[in-house]
Order: sequence, then structure tokens, then C-alpha cells
Amino acid sequence: MLYQSLIDIVGTEHVIADKETMRPYECDGLSVYTALPDYVVLPANTQEVMAVVSLCFQMNIAVVARGAGTGLSAGALPLKGGILLSLARFNHILAIDPDNSVAHVQPGVRNLAISEAAAPYNLYYAPDPSSQIACSIGGNIAENAGGVHCLKYGLTVHNLVSLVIVTAEGKRLDIGGDSLDIAGFDLLALMTGSEGMLGIVTEIKVKLLPTPQIAKVVLVGFDSVEKAANAVNDVISKGIIPAGLEMMDGYAIKAAEDFAQAGYPVDAEALLLCELDGDEEEVNQQVVATQAIFNAAGATSIRISGNEEERALIWKGRKSAFPAVGRISPDYYCMDGTIPRRELANVLTRIHQLSRYYSLRVANVFHAGDGNLHPLILFDANIPGELEKTEAFGADILKACVEAGGCITGEHGVGIEKINEMYHQFNDAELEQFHRIKRALDAKEILNPGKGIPQPKHCQEHSLLSAPNKGVI
Amino acid sequence: MLYQSLIDIVGTEHVIADKETMRPYECDGLSVYTALPDYVVLPANTQEVMAVVSLCFQMNIAVVARGAGTGLSAGALPLKGGILLSLARFNHILAIDPDNSVAHVQPGVRNLAISEAAAPYNLYYAPDPSSQIACSIGGNIAENAGGVHCLKYGLTVHNLVSLVIVTAEGKRLDIGGDSLDIAGFDLLALMTGSEGMLGIVTEIKVKLLPTPQIAKVVLVGFDSVEKAANAVNDVISKGIIPAGLEMMDGYAIKAAEDFAQAGYPVDAEALLLCELDGDEEEVNQQVVATQAIFNAAGATSIRISGNEEERALIWKGRKSAFPAVGRISPDYYCMDGTIPRRELANVLTRIHQLSRYYSLRVANVFHAGDGNLHPLILFDANIPGELEKTEAFGADILKACVEAGGCITGEHGVGIEKINEMYHQFNDAELEQFHRIKRALDAKEILNPGKGIPQPKHCQEHSLLSAPNKGVI
Repeated sequence: MLYQSLIDIVGTEHVIADKETMRPYECDGLSVYTALPDYVVLPANTQEVMAVVSLCFQMNIAVVARGAGTGLSAGALPLKGGILLSLARFNHILAIDPDNSVAHVQPGVRNLAISEAAAPYNLYYAPDPSSQIACSIGGNIAENAGGVHCLKYGLTVHNLVSLVIVTAEGKRLDIGGDSLDIAGFDLLALMTGSEGMLGIVTEIKVKLLPTPQIAKVVLVGFDSVEKAANAVNDVISKGIIPAGLEMMDGYAIKAAEDFAQAGYPVDAEALLLCELDGDEEEVNQQVVATQAIFNAAGATSIRISGNEEERALIWKGRKSAFPAVGRISPDYYCMDGTIPRRELANVLTRIHQLSRYYSLRVANVFHAGDGNLHPLILFDANIPGELEKTEAFGADILKACVEAGGCITGEHGVGIEKINEMYHQFNDAELEQFHRIKRALDAKEILNPGKGIPQPKHCQEHSLLSAPNKGVI
Repeated sequence: MLYQSLIDIVGTEHVIADKETMRPYECDGLSVYTALPDYVVLPANTQEVMAVVSLCFQMNIAVVARGAGTGLSAGALPLKGGILLSLARFNHILAIDPDNSVAHVQPGVRNLAISEAAAPYNLYYAPDPSSQIACSIGGNIAENAGGVHCLKYGLTVHNLVSLVIVTAEGKRLDIGGDSLDIAGFDLLALMTGSEGMLGIVTEIKVKLLPTPQIAKVVLVGFDSVEKAANAVNDVISKGIIPAGLEMMDGYAIKAAEDFAQAGYPVDAEALLLCELDGDEEEVNQQVVATQAIFNAAGATSIRISGNEEERALIWKGRKSAFPAVGRISPDYYCMDGTIPRRELANVLTRIHQLSRYYSLRVANVFHAGDGNLHPLILFDANIPGELEKTEAFGADILKACVEAGGCITGEHGVGIEKINEMYHQFNDAELEQFHRIKRALDAKEILNPGKGIPQPKHCQEHSLLSAPNKGVI
């Protein structure tokens, strides 16, 4: 009956019921967790989403929205079966409005496709997660994605104008608006980063920014991680907000250089990539100012991109760091945590201590300017027990982030992966507020159930939740 | 019994029960609405707030938080009696942390006092509502206040790091954090602008910014409001984001010049004040660029501040525009609405049409860069019926804002004043979501009851709510 109703709404060819055909949907980018839904449904428009969700609401069936499937916290996993609602057919750019610097898009549009469509008008969409070539803007909203440029231009939430949402009951809501502030509670911010648990986004207006006249990247080597971390703070405390300020350490530098031949100083213990953008004069001024800061901070080498080609090559090294690290280790596990910038040196030192304790190598490649760490733990899943050891190491890293005043996630979300770490971050009163909001907007808890917020400890024994179906990576 | 319990918590001298002594608390800056609470309570710390709110929760008594009382939408009015919780004793700056560019303050601290305390470190707090000399940061959070500088530096919500909140049950919550993003739903944004309806703020960390090296203001006259409005769009579409971009029209220009002798061109129909801040070179560059834009847009006069004294004088005119207008009319009513910037010329034209229709003069003094209008309707409360006519005019202006894709409030909040206008802005499904959030976090609806969100129309006859006690201004 459910199957027939779904077909009535979206058409036979847009409901997948066969287990083998739905295999590509069994995991997201964190492939250690897998689960199959009862049906994969691919609606074409807001009305169809409303009808599907309304049906699920009446029948008490779980609905998990899925964008491009590039998520890294198993957020799009249909943990409790039900419907996996793919937004893949929502892949249209509805309008680029250069007069108001706004793009009107569907949620399945790729992040980079927005900037490509805006380029003829000399505009672009600023938030740029590493996966921007593949990830969808709807997924970016679900995770409040960041990226290299969010230091200067903000996270996804800071670059949204308005959303169309389908509620848990299948009703349509228009939230946000063209003006800077809006009356009523801030539903736009509440929805952003809520990991598909409060509603399903079906239309989006994002802000576009004028493409900067020029950009230059300053590539700086240091003989210690501490010096590089301190230099990051020096730059920002001087009032310079680079477009991006990225850091890589030991293994990551060598792996990236082997892979991309970007001319990185392979003897450096830490590397900063400091991108400056704006008017030519302003950029040149900031290049001079940052160079002086880096020299004073003890840089062992400084190189400035002379042209666009060189700048692209320097970034190619950074952007290929994850796959490059993949070549020097059978497996790696990418963590995501944030810390106050001032704690960078302390937390990196702690990560290296933990690396020795667990006898597992770690490569750090991350957004230093905004304190968003991405430690890559290198391991071999074929060695019995090493996956478990890696997970314990990862949990200790996140604990260190929280102890330093930071957070267990920067931009990858909580999903399934970090649901237990939420206990480090929040106390029962805080978790209870989250649950109240969840129940207020989704009384039957049909939207992406079991994700994001664990039960307050007083409601259950705090036992580690077991993954639904956990294999090797 | 309630009285005794309150005294037990905060001490005899911090509970006001006498009607005459509590008279100063009977209204906020929108003095047309008045109401007295049962008691005014002045707690000294978070623990006392928790105890008072917990008591009220148990006894089902309303609690209305009040900062400096400068609000302009009757948001701090104890509409249903109960406790008026004054945060006046929360007036301490707990720490200025220049290393992390953060100020840790209590909610009763005046907005300007934060910048004054940060000045020795060459830092300041950016959002600057007109009332910044008097208004409190807690009130700024309740209303998500803006100001001249929010075009470049964002609203209150964009400048907050973390909050301590007392919930409706009297529990303490720590929300937000030092890192750019935070796990869980965005309670910080949800709380900001919620007008005391979801919790009571008792501690605040705000971001501080480096004081710009220099600032210059470009004062530009136009012979029509349309030309000035178009010039605003021209500047921003060229990728220049001024620190402030303010507009004044006819009556306001003349009144301000009479009052402040700032050298305004009194024959101009519209005046723009465009402030540029940053490095000296950058500012000089932008002065040249904006001058060219204003000339092309048909400016009739352009003047650039030559020094700090001249800049201060030019701003003095703008900042005294409200009292200056007060001198040319027995009474005035200050409206607050936002529109998409592209609609500036259309909506201003509509306001002037309405002015003729109602035979009431209007002066416009506002944040043009972010489309936040502040029409001042000039009237005489001693003429029978003129207050009512003024309110009808005001309601029509807000309707015009919504029709243009804007919003019924920019920074003054909804409070009592605009509760009926919420029906223009939101449909029943949207209002219902607001109510659900309200009930989720304040099940007994004791926090600032009757404000901000009207009942969905299907729940009641949509009759105009009558003010509790409405006299002349």
C-alpha cells in the first residue's frame, strides 16, 4: 500500500524498491556505516515532497533526506528504514539575479555549479567545502558547511537569504527573506545545520558576492607546529582577515607534495597557506603586512604566488591532501572538530601525544584561521583491532577539542558518527532543549530519526550506541 | 506569599511593590502603551534569576525581562502583570579579553560602555543602535539590534560568541561557544531577537573588532529621493560595502540642519551619508570610487569630511535627527520596517503618496544600505483622531514593506506594537511553527506572554488586539 501510494505521487520510475538497485544509497561519504531504506524515492518538486512526507507522517514512517551523499558523519543514513528521499532531481538553477546578488536554486544543485552559473556576472557563492565539486547546496545547509573561505565570508548560514521548507506534516513554509533581519524567531538559522531533523529544504536563495579583483596566496613554512599556530593568531589579531588561512603538518605536506608537485617545502614541519583577496592595491598591501608577521613569527620559507597558475598549483596541493594521504596509508579516518584559535598549538601538541600513545600516525590538514581541525588518522583496517583503536583515538581528539573550549564538529555534522560525543559537549538541560525543539517541529520524530541528538543521560543508561551495520572502510 | 518568597531571594530592597515607585517601569520607549506589573524585582546574579523564574514557573506567574527600557515596540511591557525582572544590576563588564577579541559582559551593560572599555586595546563592539549611549546589550540581544554599522559588520546575532540563559523552568543553559560553528541546533540564533519569550540572558560574550585606522564620511545631496535610492544600489552593486550608508529626506534634512548646524545642503531633497572605514589607502581609494558613483547617479553636491571633527559634526546631524524632527512637530511616531534595497525608491514614493492621503507629514531618516526604513510620522496628539490616523498610516507603511518583499521590523522588534502586522508577514503554518517553538521552550507561557506572535487566524477571530492601556504620547 505504501509502495503504491509512493508510485502514485512520483511515478513508478522514481521509486526504487529493489535492494540491489538501492545499494548506492546504503551509505554516505563515511562508508563505515551502512543501512538500507525500505524505498528510495526521487520526487521532482516541492508538491511531491509535501505529498510523500504527508503520507509518511500519517503512516508513521521515517523520512531521511539525501543530497549528493558526500556527507562524512553518516547523516543521510536511513538508520530506521523507511523512505530515503533523494533530492537528486532538484538539480536546477532557477535564477541568477545579478541586480540583487542572489541565486535561486534547488537543493540538489552542486555547490560549485552556483559559482559557475554566477561567473558571467562577476559574482560567486563564497562557502566552499572541499567537496564543492560534488556536494549539493541542500546538504551544505543540512550541515551548515564551511570551507576555506568561511573565515572571511562566513558559514552557509551567513550566506542564505531564504528557504522553502517542507515540515514533518508535509506543509510548506517560506522562511527568511530579502531584508537583513526578519520578524519572528530565527527559523532560517534553526533549520541550517539541523541535519534533516526539522524539515526538508526544497528551494533556496543564497547571497552572491562580487568576485574579488585579484587573489594571492602566501605559502609559509615553519620548523614547528607551534610557531605556525602562533603565526595564525598574529595575523588575525592584527586585524587582517585572510580569505583563507590553511595549515598542514608533517605527513600531509610530504604526501601532498608527492602527489601534486606544488613546490611545497618538504622539510617544513608546518605549512600555512594564507590567501588574500580584494582590490589589487589592498591585496599587495596585505601581502607585505602578512610577510612581516610571518617573518617575525619565525617562518623558515615564504613564497608568494606570482600568477593565477601558480596560485592554482599551490591550492592543488592543499585540495588533494586527503587523497594524497590516502596513498601513504591503506586507510585513513578524517576527523572534524573546532577549537578557539588561541588553543591551536596546545591541541595540536595533544594530538601528537595521542598519536604516540595509540601508535597511529596522524596528518593534520585544516582551516587554521577559524580553528576547524581535520586530523586524518592513518591506519590499516586489515590489522585486527586497528579500526577500533582509530575510533578511540578519534574520540580522544574530539574530547580534547571540547576541553579546549571547542566543539566536536566544525562542518561535518553529528549524524551517527558523533552522537556519543554530544555527551562531552552538552549537559542534560541542553540536550533536553534540543529534544524539545525536535519534538515541537516533528512530534512523531519521523524526520531522520536517531540522528544528531542523543537521549539525555537521565533518560537512558549512557551505553555506547552500536552502529547499525558497521564493516571496514 | 509570592512577595515574601521574592524578598527571600533578592532581599527587601530589591523588590518594588509600591505602585508609585514602580511608575518608571510602566512603559518602554514607546510610551503610548503602559502597564504595571505586580512586582518589580531586581536580582543581582544568575542564581537569583534562576530562583525567581523557578518560583514563577511553579506558581504560573508571568516574568517579563527588562533592560534599559529604551525599546520602541513595548516589548518590555508587563502586559499580563506578574514580575517585571529588571536586569539593571547586571551592569558589570566581567572581562575584556584582547587576545581573543572578546568582551564578557552582563546584560545590563550599556552598548557604548563595551566599546569604551575595549578602546584602550584598540578594539570596539560594532553594532551601534541610535540609542547606544543608553540601551543595554541584553536588550540588543532581545531585539537583534542593528545600527548604522550593521551594513558592514552585521546585526547583534552576527557579533555574539556565547550566552548564559535562564530557561522558563529556571534552569541555566550555556549556549554558543568560542568556535565558529557549534553542534546541535542553533539556540544562539534562536534566542537572539526572541524578545524575552524563550529565556532570559544573564551573561554574554561578544566579538570585538579592531578599531579601523581611519574613517571618512561622504555627504551627498540629491534633488530627488529616487536618485539617492538608486545611488545606494549603485555603490553596493559595485562591491563596495560602506561602514554605514544612511539616508535622510526633506523635513529631516532641514530639521537636522537647524538643530546641529552640520552644513547639510538644505535645498537637497535627499541626503546620503556614506561612511568608509579601514586602512588609510583603502579608504582613500573608496572615497574616490564612491564619488564617481555618486556623480554618475546625479548628485547635486558632494562633501568629504576633512578631519575627525568634521566627520563627527556630519554624524551629529544624523544622530540628532529624531529630536530635531521633534522640534518641528508636537509629536512624532517612529516606524521601523525593512525592504530589499532595490525597492527603496518605490517604497519611499509610496510613503509620500500615503503622506498626502493621510494629510500627515513624514520625515525619513534611515539605514539605506540595508534597507531598514525609519519613517517618522509627524502629528499632533491633541487633535482628536490624529493619533489613530497616524497609526493607520504606520500600518500602511508596514504593509507596503511586506508587499515589497520586506519585513515589518528591522531592529525594534514586534512587541505589542506590531503584533497585528505579523498577520501580513506570516501565514498560519508559519505562525504555528513559532508557537510550537514557544511552547517547547516555555510550556506554561510565562515568559513575556502576549508578545511577538499572534494566534494563528484559525485559532481566533482576527480582531485587532486592543492595547492594555493606551494614552497619548
